[in-house]
Amino acid sequence: MKKIRRPDHHALERLAALLGPKGYQDDREQIAPWLTDWRGIYSGNALAMLAPSCVAEVQAIVATASEFGIGIVPQGGNTSMVGGATPSEDGSTLLISLRRMNMIRKIDSAAGFAVAEAGVILSVLHDAAHAVGWRFPLSLGAKGSATIGGLVSTNAGGTQVLRFGTMRKLVLGLEAVMPDGTLFTSLAALKKDNRGYDLAQLLIGAEGTLGVVTAATLHLVPKICDRVVAWIGVDSPQDALSMMRIMERATGDAIESFEIMPGETLSLVLKHIPGSRNPLAGDHPWHVLIEYVVSTPCDQSADALFAPIVATQIETGMARDAVLSASEAQAEAFWGLRDSISEVERANGPAMQHDISVPINDMPAFMIDVAAAVESRFPGVIASAFGHWGYGNVLFHVRAPVGADPASWRQTTGYAASQFVYDQVTAAGGSISAEHGIGQMKRDELVRQSDPGRLAAMRAIKLALDPANIMNPGKLVPLASGKPSP
Amino acid sequence: MKKIRRPDHHALERLAALLGPKGYQDDREQIAPWLTDWRGIYSGNALAMLAPSCVAEVQAIVATASEFGIGIVPQGGNTSMVGGATPSEDGSTLLISLRRMNMIRKIDSAAGFAVAEAGVILSVLHDAAHAVGWRFPLSLGAKGSATIGGLVSTNAGGTQVLRFGTMRKLVLGLEAVMPDGTLFTSLAALKKDNRGYDLAQLLIGAEGTLGVVTAATLHLVPKICDRVVAWIGVDSPQDALSMMRIMERATGDAIESFEIMPGETLSLVLKHIPGSRNPLAGDHPWHVLIEYVVSTPCDQSADALFAPIVATQIETGMARDAVLSASEAQAEAFWGLRDSISEVERANGPAMQHDISVPINDMPAFMIDVAAAVESRFPGVIASAFGHWGYGNVLFHVRAPVGADPASWRQTTGYAASQFVYDQVTAAGGSISAEHGIGQMKRDELVRQSDPGRLAAMRAIKLALDPANIMNPGKLVPLASGKPSP
Repeated sequence: MKKIRRPDHHALERLAALLGPKGYQDDREQIAPWLTDWRGIYSGNALAMLAPSCVAEVQAIVATASEFGIGIVPQGGNTSMVGGATPSEDGSTLLISLRRMNMIRKIDSAAGFAVAEAGVILSVLHDAAHAVGWRFPLSLGAKGSATIGGLVSTNAGGTQVLRFGTMRKLVLGLEAVMPDGTLFTSLAALKKDNRGYDLAQLLIGAEGTLGVVTAATLHLVPKICDRVVAWIGVDSPQDALSMMRIMERATGDAIESFEIMPGETLSLVLKHIPGSRNPLAGDHPWHVLIEYVVSTPCDQSADALFAPIVATQIETGMARDAVLSASEAQAEAFWGLRDSISEVERANGPAMQHDISVPINDMPAFMIDVAAAVESRFPGVIASAFGHWGYGNVLFHVRAPVGADPASWRQTTGYAASQFVYDQVTAAGGSISAEHGIGQMKRDELVRQSDPGRLAAMRAIKLALDPANIMNPGKLVPLASGKPSP
Repeated sequence: MKKIRRPDHHALERLAALLGPKGYQDDREQIAPWLTDWRGIYSGNALAMLAPSCVAEVQAIVATASEFGIGIVPQGGNTSMVGGATPSEDGSTLLISLRRMNMIRKIDSAAGFAVAEAGVILSVLHDAAHAVGWRFPLSLGAKGSATIGGLVSTNAGGTQVLRFGTMRKLVLGLEAVMPDGTLFTSLAALKKDNRGYDLAQLLIGAEGTLGVVTAATLHLVPKICDRVVAWIGVDSPQDALSMMRIMERATGDAIESFEIMPGETLSLVLKHIPGSRNPLAGDHPWHVLIEYVVSTPCDQSADALFAPIVATQIETGMARDAVLSASEAQAEAFWGLRDSISEVERANGPAMQHDISVPINDMPAFMIDVAAAVESRFPGVIASAFGHWGYGNVLFHVRAPVGADPASWRQTTGYAASQFVYDQVTAAGGSISAEHGIGQMKRDELVRQSDPGRLAAMRAIKLALDPANIMNPGKLVPLASGKPSP
């Protein structure tokens, strides 16, 4: 471990005095949990961990960092999948945890919006909205840890994107501390505002490289009155896509989730998860999970509305077999199978995971053709794609042959297979990061896969707003001056 | 009229050779129609009008302009409400008309999107989408002239924003020529893409100051199967807001338009428009127009679904009286009353018009209180607000006293009343431009009404991407070096 540098005691002393013992901690042991990402892939050091309790303290921190030229790394629930909230190893930066800023400042139960501070945990917001008859329609596996600030800064998606979109569509207003310490305040829920460049949209998905998000005004929708989850066996991704479109038309775009997985992946889950059972009797090449929800008007049965639509799919032969959840417990069990895939695959041996999107029309062929191409080019690997497919993205996994040494496989064949997959994504006009962002994990790959115009524009914007590069340095933006990491 | 400057014959000669006679015109008489905005408020000059026929020509134009440091003013249908597409009077810039780039490159009738070039006229896109069973759900009065490039660059809204949002929500992909002539291509319809800063969102609403939009991928929705328009008398804007929320819940957010006008404004329309008639029998303090549309599933009657919802409003006393359109002709007639307001007010004498938004909860009080405050502060004027109110914005008009001299009233009382209105908007956390943008008309007011952080960020982004300030110079962004216009 490198020795932690101490570039300026004056800055740290000032911050310690400002924040007090609850807000300032520089004991390496005490802050260790926040210096490593939740999957244990990235580990770093920091001059100190700062936990401001209000916007004015964030402003003072950023102003001090700006004055002394010290980098700052914002962190919410520490659930980044790409090392986006883990500081660099050299310990030259300050870690800012937003977790103490966890107030829901307002829930407007007439207009349907909430103003939540950066440190509010997603499931807390869910509960608070539900208590007043509303729902915040974004959810994901890490909802018990992920915070609003992180979700905004990574433009999070999750399981309901098909109907409601990502954070980019759900944020009605934003508050952030800019790199010079000034406050950008635009929390008023204005649905129409044409005063030029949309700075809020620029900060969404910027991974903390342009400012520290301190609060957001979020769109709420009426709470769920009833839901039903369908599990359907199909012949191919193409049939799944056709089915999704028919169902969207038939329901007036009320399908919330449309997940897909290959039969082989389901078999793996059933083998590894005790007590799990196949929702359908026979084997099927592909499986889809569909969630259908009734909210307004509230007096209808989800099952009664959705069952005939599913029945039609069986009659027309688009579905090989189908079952609807008969209870909340069964709905949860269906989701449990889907949510176990990553864990089961991890237990099954090393894998390279690719969070990608391509235009939805091209996705069925991509899933089959590129999987075949990977398996042919890298003998012994198994390639499979599954996920939140209704929105055009999948997790594309390449698993190592049985018995491969994890570390050396990752660095050789695994790495080459990843580059091959990303090249195919780019050739298809897709994105090498559909959901998880760039962080430190994909920064060099972003250089390899981006046209020069896009990179130049990103660099120009970053340097214009953060000329000293103090905001989450080394993440997302491959600055021209930065050397690629090894 | 000032003499047109000719800073560099070489640049013009090169452009003339590149574009040919169809694409290059520097005869002042020939290009005069495009040097004045459609309302005749702004008039300018240009070195030449360029009409490129393809993306490569746009790139060559911008590269040449960049090389010689000549400003360029993009223009679509010339329907700006704020002088956004009119060049400056000094004739130092090139006008680029995108009207020859009018190809709909693709309509994907399976996935539901269209790729349209900048010069495609909105109504042409409407017809093309309709022909294949889809709809582009954005419409406005100027649909027969307004082009996709202009609609993207101004983040246009219109009459269906309540349900489908502004251009910001409808653009799935974008293509633009950046200020150095490089092409930004991101037309693939990726619904999930987290590769950092959203450059497409930055270009939407940038009024051509960061690049020339050449094409966009646009979200389509299933075509309308049936619609009904309700005309309802209410006691107050607060009742209208409550009614809107009840109706949104009851219809599952299927209300497309919710327009409001004061009874006094309707009287003015009925007096001035020959053959017009009041949809309701009696007088009412306020009137609302509501459009309800059925698309998927297509086999239902809009009237049958919406009539009971309206009836409930009468029973509960929220509506004083109501009528549903019995035919398409009657639906058009109801909209005709709404669409005549601006024309009737113009015929009635000089008025200052303010395109504003405030948080929707505060709008009912704002409409009444600020109108009263204006009338009290500027005796003899009449203040009234009407418009696409469901989305939190109105047109707030201040009409001159009868007999006032238009020019001198505008410059004195009118100007002061405008500043008063804008100050109230800012105090309410609202926007001084809900729909029409900033252009040249509101640039100085933007300085007066913006916090320094917002202005600094806008300037930094503008100068980072367009350091020579050649993209639509003088519009939208109040550069620090620029002098305020008189």
